[in-house]
Amino acid sequence: MSSPKLWRGQTLKDRSLDRREQMLDVGEELLGTGGVSAVTTRAVMRQTNLSPRYFYETFDSREDLVIAVYDRVESRLFERMRGVHTAGGLRAAIREIFEICARYFEEDPGRARILLREPLGDDTLRRHSADRAPTFLRMLIPILGAEADTIVPTDDEDLAIAAAALSGSLVSVYLEWVDGRLGVSRERLATAAVALVFAQLEAVRQHD
Amino acid sequence: MSSPKLWRGQTLKDRSLDRREQMLDVGEELLGTGGVSAVTTRAVMRQTNLSPRYFYETFDSREDLVIAVYDRVESRLFERMRGVHTAGGLRAAIREIFEICARYFEEDPGRARILLREPLGDDTLRRHSADRAPTFLRMLIPILGAEADTIVPTDDEDLAIAAAALSGSLVSVYLEWVDGRLGVSRERLATAAVALVFAQLEAVRQHD
Repeated sequence: MSSPKLWRGQTLKDRSLDRREQMLDVGEELLGTGGVSAVTTRAVMRQTNLSPRYFYETFDSREDLVIAVYDRVESRLFERMRGVHTAGGLRAAIREIFEICARYFEEDPGRARILLREPLGDDTLRRHSADRAPTFLRMLIPILGAEADTIVPTDDEDLAIAAAALSGSLVSVYLEWVDGRLGVSRERLATAAVALVFAQLEAVRQHD
Repeated sequence: MSSPKLWRGQTLKDRSLDRREQMLDVGEELLGTGGVSAVTTRAVMRQTNLSPRYFYETFDSREDLVIAVYDRVESRLFERMRGVHTAGGLRAAIREIFEICARYFEEDPGRARILLREPLGDDTLRRHSADRAPTFLRMLIPILGAEADTIVPTDDEDLAIAAAALSGSLVSVYLEWVDGRLGVSRERLATAAVALVFAQLEAVRQHD
């Protein structure tokens, strides 16, 4: 087998991945500051100095790029959750997750716009994030340990309702808060968020 | 006092109110089918056959018209709630309110778009509907009777969090359902919605 061709020490595949990251960086900047409508292939090409053929080699459409940006911002958030401490019990662990989210969004408010605000108004992102909500709940189970199994619904209907209700209420409360419309302390917000999680998971469960 | 001038049997004030209703009708049609971006003064003028001076005599801006449309759709919904039966207890009354909403939206899906979907993506409507949420909760108290007093938070912070959480979760669940993404029966949805109301009102209350 011959070794792959190198160009400035990179293989073709390396370079293609580099360009992908470059376009994702620009896409994230555009999406986080101007919303979905700001993410145009033209703007991405201009800011990356790449030609359109590279765009379409990497992404099927601008929607495809928007979703890839969303997924990267989400997976970086998930990464931070892997280290959550579960020794203090489920409530403490969920509270720690809310604090990780708050810090993540505070470091770069564009991330809140991408993960929380834009999916409310944009059809593509709304469908995509709605698909992700049950996945997110299921992902939390191994992180939170065996106790989580007892609160996350096992029934698919219950899980779907719980995911919609929880994501709706938490996104709403958090966005009201970052917009300065909810004059409560971060402490009070975290307490309320944890209580809302438990209350809603319990409420949707069918007792029959 | 001289009697007001008549034109085709109408006073000036009558005619001005008629034009307002005409513009609201067209605005509701545009907002319900095409969303906020479809409500332009140009489109309203074209479909009402009125001149722009009448528009600006009645509304300060297109945002002003959008909010007036929202308020009219909302107050017509409230009207239907005035007859809710409270004899069967609070849970039954709240369930009846959800059924009134479902019927109202089913009669004209544009109403769901105006009251539920558009406020998620549009800044003006979002601020306006967020302002309305605590009002809505307070309005329910006299309708639902004395029992409601025991579940609606009296503390302003609690009420604000409850309003944000409840509106977020119910809008999310209902929109997922009308979009056909939540494959549950109307019965199951109503049961879940009632349970979510009680659970969240209880959850946000500070026990100190």
